[in-house]
Amino acid sequence: MRIGLLTSGGDCPGLNAVIRSAVLHGIKSYGDEFVGFRDGWRGLIEADYMELSRHNVRGLSRVGGTILGTSRTHPYNYPGGGPQNMAKQLKRHDIDAVVVLGGEGTLAGAKRLTNAGLPMVGVPKTIDNDLNATDFTFGFDTAISIATDAMDRLRTTGESHHRCMVAEVMGRHAGWIALHSGMAAGAHAVLIPEKRVSMDQVCEWVEQVHSRGRSPLVVVAEGFIPDGAEEALAEKGEEASGRPRLGGIGEWVTAQIEELTGIETRNTTLGHIQRGGNPTGYDRVLATRFGIKALNLVHEQAWGRMVSLRGTDIVEVDLNAALEGLKTVPAERYEEAKVLFGR
Amino acid sequence: MRIGLLTSGGDCPGLNAVIRSAVLHGIKSYGDEFVGFRDGWRGLIEADYMELSRHNVRGLSRVGGTILGTSRTHPYNYPGGGPQNMAKQLKRHDIDAVVVLGGEGTLAGAKRLTNAGLPMVGVPKTIDNDLNATDFTFGFDTAISIATDAMDRLRTTGESHHRCMVAEVMGRHAGWIALHSGMAAGAHAVLIPEKRVSMDQVCEWVEQVHSRGRSPLVVVAEGFIPDGAEEALAEKGEEASGRPRLGGIGEWVTAQIEELTGIETRNTTLGHIQRGGNPTGYDRVLATRFGIKALNLVHEQAWGRMVSLRGTDIVEVDLNAALEGLKTVPAERYEEAKVLFGR
Amino acid sequence: MRIGLLTSGGDCPGLNAVIRSAVLHGIKSYGDEFVGFRDGWRGLIEADYMELSRHNVRGLSRVGGTILGTSRTHPYNYPGGGPQNMAKQLKRHDIDAVVVLGGEGTLAGAKRLTNAGLPMVGVPKTIDNDLNATDFTFGFDTAISIATDAMDRLRTTGESHHRCMVAEVMGRHAGWIALHSGMAAGAHAVLIPEKRVSMDQVCEWVEQVHSRGRSPLVVVAEGFIPDGAEEALAEKGEEASGRPRLGGIGEWVTAQIEELTGIETRNTTLGHIQRGGNPTGYDRVLATRFGIKALNLVHEQAWGRMVSLRGTDIVEVDLNAALEGLKTVPAERYEEAKVLFGR
Amino acid sequence: MRIGLLTSGGDCPGLNAVIRSAVLHGIKSYGDEFVGFRDGWRGLIEADYMELSRHNVRGLSRVGGTILGTSRTHPYNYPGGGPQNMAKQLKRHDIDAVVVLGGEGTLAGAKRLTNAGLPMVGVPKTIDNDLNATDFTFGFDTAISIATDAMDRLRTTGESHHRCMVAEVMGRHAGWIALHSGMAAGAHAVLIPEKRVSMDQVCEWVEQVHSRGRSPLVVVAEGFIPDGAEEALAEKGEEASGRPRLGGIGEWVTAQIEELTGIETRNTTLGHIQRGGNPTGYDRVLATRFGIKALNLVHEQAWGRMVSLRGTDIVEVDLNAALEGLKTVPAERYEEAKVLFGR
Repeated sequence: MRIGLLTSGGDCPGLNAVIRSAVLHGIKSYGDEFVGFRDGWRGLIEADYMELSRHNVRGLSRVGGTILGTSRTHPYNYPGGGPQNMAKQLKRHDIDAVVVLGGEGTLAGAKRLTNAGLPMVGVPKTIDNDLNATDFTFGFDTAISIATDAMDRLRTTGESHHRCMVAEVMGRHAGWIALHSGMAAGAHAVLIPEKRVSMDQVCEWVEQVHSRGRSPLVVVAEGFIPDGAEEALAEKGEEASGRPRLGGIGEWVTAQIEELTGIETRNTTLGHIQRGGNPTGYDRVLATRFGIKALNLVHEQAWGRMVSLRGTDIVEVDLNAALEGLKTVPAERYEEAKVLFGR
Repeated sequence: MRIGLLTSGGDCPGLNAVIRSAVLHGIKSYGDEFVGFRDGWRGLIEADYMELSRHNVRGLSRVGGTILGTSRTHPYNYPGGGPQNMAKQLKRHDIDAVVVLGGEGTLAGAKRLTNAGLPMVGVPKTIDNDLNATDFTFGFDTAISIATDAMDRLRTTGESHHRCMVAEVMGRHAGWIALHSGMAAGAHAVLIPEKRVSMDQVCEWVEQVHSRGRSPLVVVAEGFIPDGAEEALAEKGEEASGRPRLGGIGEWVTAQIEELTGIETRNTTLGHIQRGGNPTGYDRVLATRFGIKALNLVHEQAWGRMVSLRGTDIVEVDLNAALEGLKTVPAERYEEAKVLFGR
Repeated sequence: MRIGLLTSGGDCPGLNAVIRSAVLHGIKSYGDEFVGFRDGWRGLIEADYMELSRHNVRGLSRVGGTILGTSRTHPYNYPGGGPQNMAKQLKRHDIDAVVVLGGEGTLAGAKRLTNAGLPMVGVPKTIDNDLNATDFTFGFDTAISIATDAMDRLRTTGESHHRCMVAEVMGRHAGWIALHSGMAAGAHAVLIPEKRVSMDQVCEWVEQVHSRGRSPLVVVAEGFIPDGAEEALAEKGEEASGRPRLGGIGEWVTAQIEELTGIETRNTTLGHIQRGGNPTGYDRVLATRFGIKALNLVHEQAWGRMVSLRGTDIVEVDLNAALEGLKTVPAERYEEAKVLFGR
Repeated sequence: MRIGLLTSGGDCPGLNAVIRSAVLHGIKSYGDEFVGFRDGWRGLIEADYMELSRHNVRGLSRVGGTILGTSRTHPYNYPGGGPQNMAKQLKRHDIDAVVVLGGEGTLAGAKRLTNAGLPMVGVPKTIDNDLNATDFTFGFDTAISIATDAMDRLRTTGESHHRCMVAEVMGRHAGWIALHSGMAAGAHAVLIPEKRVSMDQVCEWVEQVHSRGRSPLVVVAEGFIPDGAEEALAEKGEEASGRPRLGGIGEWVTAQIEELTGIETRNTTLGHIQRGGNPTGYDRVLATRFGIKALNLVHEQAWGRMVSLRGTDIVEVDLNAALEGLKTVPAERYEEAKVLFGR
């Protein structure tokens, strides 16, 4: 077979490892040929692609980012998009199937396109770990690793200066990165989108820790909304959602803690470093297994299906499974972490 | 309650994180007191312990090893051991329960002791990931991370010199570390105790890679036995099992590859660095959750039970579950990895 | 002798390694006793200190921050400060000498105090590497290591999205961190306080790189002032110096690049992670050698002297040497780096 | 100009960074063309080379090893070697100058060839840091970083088991890696080729540390020869030098410590991981500066000269400077480190 691959949406450590294992497995086990579409759906729509040989994917399991490039191009709305045009392009370029690597939106597009007859299988990608369809996705563990390392550093400088340190991490709708990295780093408070907490409560935790002579560490997901702060924020001209925009929630929480407790407090927004760089061993293994399985799905012509991790098994599920709502942090996981807050 | 903790058997990154979260959770949620027995069962038998305050466990989530020390002391055979003596010691020192962190042997001891009436719960520990009772244990991910990093390094030096590089990793009875780190590093052959492979097959893989101008990487678990080499090894005065002893299997495989293929080949035995140092974020989260759950089991007086990871959930199982045979690499997992060997 | 140690000013990886080697050397070679003053000059002024035994400094060579705590307390202006009061405290607590670890301001204080008769020696500390008195100081290499690692990550995500990535690093008055980490990471522009560069020039470099299909990386020291932007910035209500304040120079440069070139551009401000965490091997060696030498200076009663690195030698210089102006990046070093900008 | 590059001898992190900066600087500043000879002198002798464009060296500052390959081919003795043949090859392929990256032997060859009229400049390379001609060479800092990290790991597992840990590191003739990594890791003994120490002395240090309840760490350079052990080793059939061969000096020292002290002792031979993988920021900066300077030397037609680090300056020296004996650890540096041994 001649198989196309594309990566769409935000980049994620492990994308290249999926590409590599799918290509190597296909060449060796089935004699397949591969092409890589550039910059997500755009490359497919415009037939902008590169041939992917064994040489092209050499050493890729340890390389972050995606050699294919990525974009947020919409598969239907982009000029020349939609199933008829895409089917023509695939036919014209002798491409028999497409492996689509992407998040919720991308997979929704792939589902719609397979319903319209296109031969596609999916590989879930979300650095925030917020897809219900799979226990974990690659990239998440790397983000945890980077965030934990950064917080270890913040703690030594915080302790030396008797400061409260705030770390803002990714997580717009789900607090998994904050929850895991915060637990790993021994944070004294973890603030996530799923759980409104008042700044009074946060400050109580901070003061408990500070009064014992220690440096409090507060981890804030970018999507956190403090309880009771909606109006105050609105007055300051923030967006209606009550979520502060200017400078981010990390800076807002930092200013609040300093104002309410009088404790010197510093914010660090980890930002783009969380999704870059070499994937961890965990993510490379997961991505490599996803790539092998995705290629098998192609040869089973399991269009509209995607790969997924369940326990320690790589299984297949329907692409619809990726679209059934976000996987947010359940109350019991938050309560579990909370037993270590404050004090 | 007044609760004792002990760590037994080989050390493992994450032991301290278990100790920390159990102690912090107990102090904060239940007002417990804690003691730490020194050097495994010996500390319990001889009542050699330290009080564990909040201060003692500060910052431990990121510290490798075990602050309690560990040993291979047998709980029955060591002088002063056995349930009656232990029960006396616990009573004399007002200790209401014991959390036992250890591998198969240690947990078997704990099971036998709880059958004899002692109040104990277990936390599984095996860096080799070879316990059936749980999907993963802490320490394994750290070992993968260290081994993967080392193999990344071996590859750059191998490529520069056009050599074949061999890496010997831990795994006496189960090849999980070799399988995962080998897959993560893009190894061209992974040799594990569960699967006899002939040196002819290994050399074929090595030569395929070398003939494409690349540097082959072969990962060998310490318990691997080459197919058909039993007699040859026995003649050289090796142990009856056919497993080479002097210098380890890594060196033996290296010498064989060099002799059979003529390709310059170098061995590196990773050894003790695999189990030392700071745990990864993944292991810290797992260990912290295990500690919290273990403490809950104590308060439920769930003697003879242990904590376990199933999918993404921390559950409890009977200590017997840890004793039902080793979790070895199943054939399908080996076959999955094998699609990327050679070429 | 009975010797006091204090750390003053911003924290820096390696402070603990200095403390450890001075204490271990003193105990073993001279039978000294040690105390550690808490939080810089405050601890000396208020006689707030801890005894430092061999046990207290155990394992400290690899631990970031300072176990003594630090502050910006002024040695003369703080209530109870000044040479007479300090001399009294030293006498009352039987302390024969003080080793002062700090930056330019701290060392100026130490010089003034030794002129007034106090028995003090200095250890230079500046994470920015901006002290003339020494080739390098500990902490700088760790900052380079962290910044380089972060930029490696930024590059993979930048390449995947075809973005321009901006990284803001420390360096208020001297651009050493930007220069070294930028050179290490292969940056396409490095903007430092010592060299005014116009945004037009920066955009030219960015566009050269982008036009070759690559992701430009721009490294900005926090003290950089763009050439010709003073008025524009002043109009926007920035501070008189022309240096943008809100959100930092990194965000300002990012916005400018995006506006002037139309290339999607993202900023990451590395912030506090640059000065935290375990020191590199390089910094541990330098700090350990500084501590040994500082202790020797004490026993030579070389009051008013400080330790310094010259080439590969640890030498002693007068504390005045630390006060003779900042060590900024010389023009030839900037020109050397510049040959790799753009394209 | 059209300039050739070659890397010869053992690989070293930073070689690629030299190649990259020389090529980029030459293309941009002088409009040069570049070729890379494959596998050291062999590539020059056999005119086996690749063109090196801007694209070929992209991203190389952070990549270990050498993209050119390396070998120990002798420039005179290899068939087709010697100045006449080389001059012909250079002429035939329009190559105006050669930049030679290598250690003592390689640079001696380059010197002899320049004396015979060939247009060559040198870049010193030794991971052991044993060249007199320069303060430091790239690769050494990376080796220190890897060794220090490994020793940090050994210490946590050593402490948990109350064992003595031995780490064998590179250093056949000079103990710089042992000295620096041992000092960085807080080793209790550092054994180097330059200083004979008796096993009784080593055991005394080990016992001092063990008796205080700590885990001793002993760092051994591969070229260390224990004082008084020459005969004992000779009796066991070792080589005349008295240096144990089988299993390496690390294993021999380990066995001796265990036998003489009764303390459980474990060896780890770091081996090939010390010279592989991504260079540190320090090494990338040094290598990048070396490459820029080497290219300048070419344009100054400074044949027979090489680049060198003196303090913080990159200077040029005669290739002879690299041949004036090894830079071994001077007695005062050993004594400086020794104040922290034992106890």
